[in-house]
Amino acid sequence: MADRLRGVAAVAHGGGPTQVINASLVGVVQESAQHPEITAVYGASHGILGVLEERFLDLWREDPDVLLAVARSPSSAVGSCRRKLSAEDCARVLTVFRAHNIRYFFCNGGNDSMDTATQVSRLARERGYELRVVGIPKTIDNDLAETDHCPGYGSAARFIAHAVRDIGADNLALPAPISVVEVMGRNAGWLVAATSLARHQEDDAPHLVYFPERPISEDKLVSDVEAVYSRLGRAVVAVSEGLTNDRGEPFGAELMKADGFSHRLASNLAQTLADLLQKRLDVRARGEKPGLLGRSCAAFVSETDRHEAELCGRAAVRAACEGASDKMVTLVRESNRPYRCSTGLVSLERVASAERLFPAEWIEASGHDVRPPFKEYAGPLAGEIEPHPRLKRFLVKPRT
Amino acid sequence: MADRLRGVAAVAHGGGPTQVINASLVGVVQESAQHPEITAVYGASHGILGVLEERFLDLWREDPDVLLAVARSPSSAVGSCRRKLSAEDCARVLTVFRAHNIRYFFCNGGNDSMDTATQVSRLARERGYELRVVGIPKTIDNDLAETDHCPGYGSAARFIAHAVRDIGADNLALPAPISVVEVMGRNAGWLVAATSLARHQEDDAPHLVYFPERPISEDKLVSDVEAVYSRLGRAVVAVSEGLTNDRGEPFGAELMKADGFSHRLASNLAQTLADLLQKRLDVRARGEKPGLLGRSCAAFVSETDRHEAELCGRAAVRAACEGASDKMVTLVRESNRPYRCSTGLVSLERVASAERLFPAEWIEASGHDVRPPFKEYAGPLAGEIEPHPRLKRFLVKPRT
Repeated sequence: MADRLRGVAAVAHGGGPTQVINASLVGVVQESAQHPEITAVYGASHGILGVLEERFLDLWREDPDVLLAVARSPSSAVGSCRRKLSAEDCARVLTVFRAHNIRYFFCNGGNDSMDTATQVSRLARERGYELRVVGIPKTIDNDLAETDHCPGYGSAARFIAHAVRDIGADNLALPAPISVVEVMGRNAGWLVAATSLARHQEDDAPHLVYFPERPISEDKLVSDVEAVYSRLGRAVVAVSEGLTNDRGEPFGAELMKADGFSHRLASNLAQTLADLLQKRLDVRARGEKPGLLGRSCAAFVSETDRHEAELCGRAAVRAACEGASDKMVTLVRESNRPYRCSTGLVSLERVASAERLFPAEWIEASGHDVRPPFKEYAGPLAGEIEPHPRLKRFLVKPRT
Repeated sequence: MADRLRGVAAVAHGGGPTQVINASLVGVVQESAQHPEITAVYGASHGILGVLEERFLDLWREDPDVLLAVARSPSSAVGSCRRKLSAEDCARVLTVFRAHNIRYFFCNGGNDSMDTATQVSRLARERGYELRVVGIPKTIDNDLAETDHCPGYGSAARFIAHAVRDIGADNLALPAPISVVEVMGRNAGWLVAATSLARHQEDDAPHLVYFPERPISEDKLVSDVEAVYSRLGRAVVAVSEGLTNDRGEPFGAELMKADGFSHRLASNLAQTLADLLQKRLDVRARGEKPGLLGRSCAAFVSETDRHEAELCGRAAVRAACEGASDKMVTLVRESNRPYRCSTGLVSLERVASAERLFPAEWIEASGHDVRPPFKEYAGPLAGEIEPHPRLKRFLVKPRT
């Protein structure tokens, strides 16, 4: 047991909010109250920006009931930001920490946030300022290394699986034969893979799933969709926002160059592909982009995800109080049936610059679907996705 | 009491599915079982197309438990279509009806479907075929005349209010100052108005609401957003997909002409406006288009809406059995506090070609918000929209 280091704990959120980042925040606040060496918990308003500008919220002064409600609400209650630290920024962070006797720093985010945490910790060591820095994982993209999965992923997976299920039901009802659904996750295919959780029967949506790890030629994509359309008379296609063609370029890159509106087209892959399919296959196609709802829609929180997010917040505090620093909390799957998970610790530097892509062995040889082990992996994280009931369809014998 | 007319009842869905159209369907199926003169209930597969192609599903043969589950699921379980009937089509419908002794025809849809119902009824009368035709209202757009509101609207309103609430929370957390959210409803502002139900505090999203009934110049739009941005440092803007500029053209019409991609740009108003605002105000803006989820997302069904959808299905059957024809069922609000609603009947021809726009007196003089009576009207239909909790934000005194 390390000596008790007396001081304030600061929490900073980095990157996009999630449906459960507040559960981690409240986990930190509540766990800290159990450790007398922690004298206050400050939330940095809008992440590291709040540290630089010395805008801290005193979280222990909040009404406990409000905190409990916040733990169950999406988005970040203290605010977040995207900011890479310069050397000057780092020095400023340390000045502010010293002024407030901040001795515990909890960085809640993805690999950029872990990089921030590493930098701050290094400078503190160099300057002889005792500071314990522990990262709390958070990303809907699930692309952090060294952890079984990341808080935020299960709920985002739950949302997108429901979205594809419901868009699939709509697609089945009204002949609009092809729907292209764009899914978050620019570099890693974890979220687009989760759309497969919507599928309960062989002909359920999604019928094709495309990964950013697997570039695909326009011709191949068109022929894949054509094959599904010939078989079912419709096709729901899930594509990662980071999907590129076989030259590694975004789809529609040529159009972009031609019309000079690169920003708009690049931000609208679903519609670009729908247009392409409509033109090449001569059937009606439409693009769907659930967008920010994918990380903010309160109705689709996975209870497992929320629970684990809180767990990670609490584990970070306990680890820091026991003397750990330069670590990130990880989730360790202990068993899958029944699903059981605990927390571990990993060195921050092993996480900071790494990116965990979707495993090649979980992609079907066809390149457009997941393999069964992925469903085993992701199912418990997203929670059950109920199928919509379908009529048996007793056809009446024609009489004319 | 009319003579009992013995025969089969056919139900056809028309236009876009909703979250509760199946509740009306199952209402028809269940109520019909109470009326011995109805010998079977056939669902037309994909609406009037199924009639023309003589594809009927025998709904009484379905498992009652499956029907109960279907009543609680979105999309249309029998399928829908968009098809205007030609004179030839009408004759074919009658031939098919005769062949199956279909004597009750329930058209579930918007004003196009009511038009179809009117045509079929007229021809039946001309040809001396006894047929009772009753319309069941259904549209997320809420633009049918003569009814207080339409089944489907409450749930779509509930979805879009939650979507704006959650996008608003995300917008508050991560400085991406301007979000433009595109809302269904091409001609009528009922759904974009419903985004106002997300607002509990003065600075909650949406900050601006634009109606298709109120064209607006690009300059006015930019200055409205600029004013909100100056005050709050952010702005969530809800726009109807049918919003036009003051020349009555879609925004970005000039760009469309220039680049020849009218389809894509027209289908992407939110991004077009976000690009415009980003350029003119020099702050980051993004477009959000929840799209088809607005009418299919199972998680946001309004219980009131579902209940009333079933009620309308049942009322249609009762009215037809009592001898009514050429009528549409209406919803009649009996009181608002507590909310109580019953059904009525109106002549089909008063509904068929009419379109009920959003009332001018419910739009603020500013042109970019609803007036309080709208919230009184829509609140009970969408059900309660809980606000997200917010921290009190006890700021720590700076020390540097």
